[in-house]
Amino acid sequence: MNIAVVLFPRLTALDAVGPYETLQRLPDTTVTFVGHQRGEVRTENGYLGLTIDKTFDEVVAPDVVIVPGGIGVLDLLEDKVLLDWLRSVHATSRFTTSVCTGSLLLAAAGLLPGLEATTHWAFMDKLTELGAVPTSTRVVEHLEQRTIIAAGVSSGIDMALRLAELLTDQVTAQAMQLMVEYDPQPPFDAGSVVKAGPLVTARARELFQEKD
Amino acid sequence: MNIAVVLFPRLTALDAVGPYETLQRLPDTTVTFVGHQRGEVRTENGYLGLTIDKTFDEVVAPDVVIVPGGIGVLDLLEDKVLLDWLRSVHATSRFTTSVCTGSLLLAAAGLLPGLEATTHWAFMDKLTELGAVPTSTRVVEHLEQRTIIAAGVSSGIDMALRLAELLTDQVTAQAMQLMVEYDPQPPFDAGSVVKAGPLVTARARELFQEKD
Repeated sequence: MNIAVVLFPRLTALDAVGPYETLQRLPDTTVTFVGHQRGEVRTENGYLGLTIDKTFDEVVAPDVVIVPGGIGVLDLLEDKVLLDWLRSVHATSRFTTSVCTGSLLLAAAGLLPGLEATTHWAFMDKLTELGAVPTSTRVVEHLEQRTIIAAGVSSGIDMALRLAELLTDQVTAQAMQLMVEYDPQPPFDAGSVVKAGPLVTARARELFQEKD
Repeated sequence: MNIAVVLFPRLTALDAVGPYETLQRLPDTTVTFVGHQRGEVRTENGYLGLTIDKTFDEVVAPDVVIVPGGIGVLDLLEDKVLLDWLRSVHATSRFTTSVCTGSLLLAAAGLLPGLEATTHWAFMDKLTELGAVPTSTRVVEHLEQRTIIAAGVSSGIDMALRLAELLTDQVTAQAMQLMVEYDPQPPFDAGSVVKAGPLVTARARELFQEKD
């Protein structure tokens, strides 16, 4: 099984690394990081470099596609090379998936027409503009269309566990959960806008603006 | 505030990226990835390259130190350069922390003498050998010693949220949780050995051996 994870400048690292880490130990599986050109890309703040190993034209028929988000997505919404590649690989993939604002790229490629989808909570309006229907579900599955769409950043781990189950079996998927010891015990319960409330949400918006 | 994240060959990417992603948007904060030499290191399976931006001797007094794990840790348990650096930066850091088998390096550096600590569930024995006292707590805090030790892989996110609270305030830490939308909804409940049970644990051990 070949899993392709898309990388691009100014991505959010955890969007890509969460699913990668959860899926990389599936049996008989190879993970390839793919992008416009081989070499390093930097996260949105420039702090972390990640390596693209293959260009889009070198990865023609992956079984699974994972598209992360990040502020860099906004520069790619009309990127013909990437959007053509997404349409092309989706024709034969078992599952084409996204995390966070990665769903805006799937929508821009026409893969979510009139379908429920999610993204990072701060970018829900953009989904509507691109023809999808925003929902607050953390992981949205369209099994008939072979797309799975996860909400912001860390939700890619939840998505990947479900994907592992679809690709293998439940015991193997649970083994993946144990391998990454995903037994969440956050010290607070502020992981969604509803749970966080207005004060924390305002603080988050303030901090977004400071860095992005 | 300067946060140093250690990278080395054959690390587990999520150990490093989980805390990085959770802490990178703290106000007035810079994150630096540090290692033996500048340039790319590869994860344990070789699938992902991450960039070291500064060498150990270029990072002299970080406020926070994060040490990830990975199978590559086993090659570093007597690495004088790394262990000396850990001892040196811990003398002035506000917090010296680890995720997964990263705690074996803290223990090897003498930073956990007779103290409770945790690590990936498959490596608990190693902690004892290195003079620490294994516990199944997901995030172990020694505030007096300024060390915080997280269990396997994904636990670094939980640890980082607690660290964010210690470094700033609870509202800001909760804003971090919202930014990475850490509202965990795993499809299974198999994230610890006790919860996973013997069948899933056996499958996990089998898959570890297949790839490592």
